[in-house]
Amino acid sequence: MIQEPIRTPTRDGVLRAAAKIAEILPPTPLLPFDIEGTRLWAKAEVLQPIGAFKIRGAWHRLSDLSEEERGRGVVAVSSGNHAQGVAWAARRLGMKATIVMPRDAPKVKLEATRALGAEIVLYDRPGEDRDEVAAREVERRGAVLVHAFADPWVIEGQGSAGIEITEQLGREPFRIVAPCGGGGLSAGLALACPSSRIVPAEPVGWDMVGQSLAAGGIVRAAPDAPATICDALQPTASAPIDLDVLRGRSEPGVAVTDDEVRAAQRFAFARLKLVVEPGGAAALAAVLAGKVPAVADTVVMLTGGNCDPASFAQTIAG
Amino acid sequence: MIQEPIRTPTRDGVLRAAAKIAEILPPTPLLPFDIEGTRLWAKAEVLQPIGAFKIRGAWHRLSDLSEEERGRGVVAVSSGNHAQGVAWAARRLGMKATIVMPRDAPKVKLEATRALGAEIVLYDRPGEDRDEVAAREVERRGAVLVHAFADPWVIEGQGSAGIEITEQLGREPFRIVAPCGGGGLSAGLALACPSSRIVPAEPVGWDMVGQSLAAGGIVRAAPDAPATICDALQPTASAPIDLDVLRGRSEPGVAVTDDEVRAAQRFAFARLKLVVEPGGAAALAAVLAGKVPAVADTVVMLTGGNCDPASFAQTIAG
Repeated sequence: MIQEPIRTPTRDGVLRAAAKIAEILPPTPLLPFDIEGTRLWAKAEVLQPIGAFKIRGAWHRLSDLSEEERGRGVVAVSSGNHAQGVAWAARRLGMKATIVMPRDAPKVKLEATRALGAEIVLYDRPGEDRDEVAAREVERRGAVLVHAFADPWVIEGQGSAGIEITEQLGREPFRIVAPCGGGGLSAGLALACPSSRIVPAEPVGWDMVGQSLAAGGIVRAAPDAPATICDALQPTASAPIDLDVLRGRSEPGVAVTDDEVRAAQRFAFARLKLVVEPGGAAALAAVLAGKVPAVADTVVMLTGGNCDPASFAQTIAG
Repeated sequence: MIQEPIRTPTRDGVLRAAAKIAEILPPTPLLPFDIEGTRLWAKAEVLQPIGAFKIRGAWHRLSDLSEEERGRGVVAVSSGNHAQGVAWAARRLGMKATIVMPRDAPKVKLEATRALGAEIVLYDRPGEDRDEVAAREVERRGAVLVHAFADPWVIEGQGSAGIEITEQLGREPFRIVAPCGGGGLSAGLALACPSSRIVPAEPVGWDMVGQSLAAGGIVRAAPDAPATICDALQPTASAPIDLDVLRGRSEPGVAVTDDEVRAAQRFAFARLKLVVEPGGAAALAAVLAGKVPAVADTVVMLTGGNCDPASFAQTIAG
C-alpha cells in the first residue's frame, strides 16, 4: 500500500535521523576485510539489537509521530526485519504495533517480532494482496502505516548508516554496495553520501529497483518470478519516492544468484565471524562473484542476520 | 615449556600494550544483550582480524623484541588461536614464525596459520610432549619462545581488552567472565581492571586454573581428563606467573560442560549474530547455565570464532 508521499526525503532529514539514532544505538562496526590484497569494509548491521538495519528507519519514523498519532498505533507490512524494527521502536515508545507478515516468513522472524510485543496478522504469499490486508488494518484501527521503503522518514533513517560510515572512514567511500528490496536503504545511502557511488544488489528475478531504473519507470515483479532464498528482498515493486532519489545517483544494479549468496554467507561465517541471512549477504555476494569490482574504498552493507538455524547449518556445511 | 619468568607482568605494562594495540587495531565492539531483563555486555573478540583475542598478546610480545631477536624468529606452541596471533604479528614485522601445533587441531586453524606464512610443526596429542617439541625448535633455530600464557608480555597484551572495556563502559565493570585455558587472559584482565571481579570459565576436567587456585599450587590435568569440544582450552597446567596474579584477585572459577557450551554457541548465533567457537563460548555458557549470576554490569568475553564449519552446523541445527 504505497500512499502519496507526504514529503520528499532530504539529506538534512538523514542528518537529523543520524543524530536521533546516535542517542540510543551505538554505531555498528565497520570491519576491514581483504580480497586479493585489496582492503574493503563491511558495515555490520547484523549487530543491531534486532539483527538488522531496519531499526534505523523505524526509529526515525515512530519517534517523529505526534502524541495523537502515537495513541493510534502503527501498522507495517514486512517479511520480518522491518517488522522487528517497527515492533522494537513501538515497544520503546509505548505504542501498539500491528505487523502484516507473510505466512511463509522465517519462523525466527515471526517469533522475534511476537516477542517484541507486536500483534501479527498473517497473509498468504503469493495469493493475498498484502497491501489490501494492511489497508484493512489501518482503517480498522485508525493506525499510521509505516511502509518498509516508500516513506521519507524510513528512507532517511536507513541513510543514517551512511553518516556513520562517513564518520568511521573519515570520508565518504568511493562506493557502497547494498542489499536491495524496495530501495529504501539504497536511497537513504545516496542522500547520506552524495559523493559515493551506490550499487543496489538484488536477487535474480527480483531486481525491481535495477530494472525500474533501467526502464525509467516502475517495473513490477513477474507473477512467475523465480524462487529466491533472500526472503527479505522480494518486493512486488519499488516506489517512486525511492526511484526519484536513486535516478542519476545509483550505478546500474546487479542481480545475484542463490549460490552466490550462499558463498557470501560462508565467507562471512569463516572470515568475518558474522551470521548473515541470505538477503543480508546479497551485496557481499555481488562483490565476491565479481559483479561489482573489489576496488579499494568499497563498503559492503551486511544488512541482516536473522537466519533460520537449519538453513544456515546447511549453507555452512555445504 | 615454561621458562623462568623474565619479569612480572604489571598494570603499566597492560596500559602500554593497550596503547600499542590501539595504534593498529580498532577496539572490538562491546555489545549489549539482555538476560531476563538484565543488561549484560559481550566483548566481541571474535571480530579481531585473526578471529580471536590472541592477536593482542602476540603483538605486544613480538613488537617489543629487539632487532637482534627479530632476526632469530619466534617459536610458539598453540592449538590454533595463539598460533594465528603470533603468525599475524610475525608477518607484519617481517619475522619468521614456527608454530608447534597438535595434529588434531581444527583444520581451519591449521590452514589459517599456514596462510599467514608461518611454518607449522605437528605433534601428536596425547603422547608427544609439545614442550619438548618446542624446546627442540627453539634450540635448533636459536629462536625466541612466545609462550601462550606463561609470558609477561602475553599476559599484558591480553589485558589490553580490559582497558578497552573500561573505556567503552566509562568504568571498570563489576565482573568479567572469561574463557580460560592457561590463564593468560584472566591474569591480564585482573591487572587491567583492579576493581573488577574476574571469573575464569573452563571446560569440566580441564579447569586447571580453578583447581590450582583452590589447591594453592599447580594442579596438572589428569592423564584421563575427559574429552572436551573446547579445543582452545586444554592446557596441561597453568603457570606460576598467571596464578600469582590471579591469587586473591580471581573469584572461584567455574567449569562448563560441552552441552552448556553448545547452548551458548546457539545463543550467540541467534541473539548476537556472532560465530563463536566452543572455547570462545565458555564464559557465556557459564552465565547462561546460571553458574555465574547474570547481574548487571557483567562483561562476558567471547574470545574466539575459528570454527570447523561441519561441527558448527551440527551445533546450530541441533
